[in-house]
Amino acid sequence: MSNKNDTGKAYHLKCTGDALRTADAHSAPSDWTLFGSCFCPFVQRVWVALEYFGMDYHYYEVDPYKKPPELLEVSPKGLVPALKFNNLETPRSLNESIVILEYLEDVATVQKKGSLLPPISDPYARALMRLQADHINRNLVPAFYRYLQAQEPEKQIEGGREFISAIEGLVKLFERAAAETNTDVGLWKEGGKLSLADVMAGPWLFRATHVLVHYRGFTLPEDAKFRAYIDRLVSHPAFKSTCSTEELYLESYERYAYNRPNTSQVANAINSGRGLP
Amino acid sequence: MSNKNDTGKAYHLKCTGDALRTADAHSAPSDWTLFGSCFCPFVQRVWVALEYFGMDYHYYEVDPYKKPPELLEVSPKGLVPALKFNNLETPRSLNESIVILEYLEDVATVQKKGSLLPPISDPYARALMRLQADHINRNLVPAFYRYLQAQEPEKQIEGGREFISAIEGLVKLFERAAAETNTDVGLWKEGGKLSLADVMAGPWLFRATHVLVHYRGFTLPEDAKFRAYIDRLVSHPAFKSTCSTEELYLESYERYAYNRPNTSQVANAINSGRGLP
Ligand SMILES: N[C@@H](CCC(=O)N[C@@H](CS)C(=O)NCC(=O)O)C(=O)O
Ligand SMILES: N[C@@H](CCC(=O)N[C@@H](CS)C(=O)NCC(=O)O)C(=O)O
Repeated sequence: MSNKNDTGKAYHLKCTGDALRTADAHSAPSDWTLFGSCFCPFVQRVWVALEYFGMDYHYYEVDPYKKPPELLEVSPKGLVPALKFNNLETPRSLNESIVILEYLEDVATVQKKGSLLPPISDPYARALMRLQADHINRNLVPAFYRYLQAQEPEKQIEGGREFISAIEGLVKLFERAAAETNTDVGLWKEGGKLSLADVMAGPWLFRATHVLVHYRGFTLPEDAKFRAYIDRLVSHPAFKSTCSTEELYLESYERYAYNRPNTSQVANAINSGRGLP
Repeated sequence: MSNKNDTGKAYHLKCTGDALRTADAHSAPSDWTLFGSCFCPFVQRVWVALEYFGMDYHYYEVDPYKKPPELLEVSPKGLVPALKFNNLETPRSLNESIVILEYLEDVATVQKKGSLLPPISDPYARALMRLQADHINRNLVPAFYRYLQAQEPEKQIEGGREFISAIEGLVKLFERAAAETNTDVGLWKEGGKLSLADVMAGPWLFRATHVLVHYRGFTLPEDAKFRAYIDRLVSHPAFKSTCSTEELYLESYERYAYNRPNTSQVANAINSGRGLP
């Protein structure tokens, strides 16, 4: 596709900024290897959780669009993230960002390293957080890609509306949890702790503030409470430490923004009207 | 749409067979109300779990296509299942089958009523089960509807292949868990206990044996191990007690099988190439 704004920039293969410093600090072999890609929001979910729990890991950058055989060994569809366990006699690994997140949550609970969910003694508060997580995966994440890949003006307008409405849906669920529970898990509340939902939505909300603003003239909802939430999220140490500089995201997402034929399973699922891989 | 096999049968509004007996046994007001529909596989997930844990509840049949206001109060999109809590000063409820399942799992853990997941002391075994659950939601369930709603012969052949391949993917994950863990949770293993994945996939596997066989000439994989699994699943007391008679499913799914324009959010999502609601 030809477009004078389409500069043909390629996705990055190395973190920048804070994320680079964190990757460098975790470049030594360890019991766990995180197979990651610097631009990938699904990877960022897992990475934030590892940082939040202060767990030991080796950050290992791979190009998921030119899948090295070792990636296919730990992730059947060749998607990042994957987590490989190196301290066992038999090879073990996990893939799927949410599955890895729940795994880390379980390990942290057992090891008393904190939690991204309200305690099990408050199952209703946990359920409200899982409702947020479900909404994020089912609505917010697909809406982000549909908006970013939309080419015709009407589709872009529709995409923007859909993305905003997914954000509003999330805010409604945050407000509901605040009203119906006393939990201090969740950055939506001032003074709240990082939550599973924050970690799951964060990478796309953050990319919205760069990528969607740049390529779609998107404006975040003005609502002061929402702005304050985004500030708390992107400045949270565990989140911030996994963020590259703006340029990396703008360049890595250019091909999505012009919907250039590419090999991304996410982009293709959106274009062919399928659920995300 | 006109088709001489399309008899214009309507979906049912009352359980039959074992499910009717169970519904009748739970017709009295209780602390929890399950908003259900007799044909709905998402409801069946929750219902099986309630039966498995031996929890007290009121089964309340609603027509989700003619949403009574009380359904919209407990489920924003008017989808069943929903679980309403009646013993509280302020109204509380949950929707989304998986969220309710995880809630029941948490409550059962706290109350020591059993578990659908391996214990938290084995986070890897839990993660492998969550990988199964993720595959079921992401691939198996949408494949079921795409197959059932496919009208052209080529689309039906493709739908059948896709559904079989989703089943094979699940079997692979079951085999992996059997090889890599010692857990006795999961009916895939002879002598195993009912698992979250069994409960999440069961309603569609069961419907496949009736609805897909009838409307698509589908044949279940011949594999003896798979057949034995299905037998264990559909004869498990908690599962069986929530099953209506074959006729109910055949009649209720007729409109899907002929892809008649209808108001089902699931059917419309499939037809418009969106993720399931
Ligand atoms: N459902 C997966 C999605 C992961 C995913 O789509 N990762 C992308 C990078 S952001 C990928 O690996 N793409 C490689 C490809 O499309 O083949 C998860 O949650 O982990
Ligand atoms: N994601 C929901 C889906 C539930 C669902 O789609 N239920 C159907 C009945 S099987 C329904 O309520 N349909 C009403 C409608 O389409 O408006 C869940 O897992 O609970």
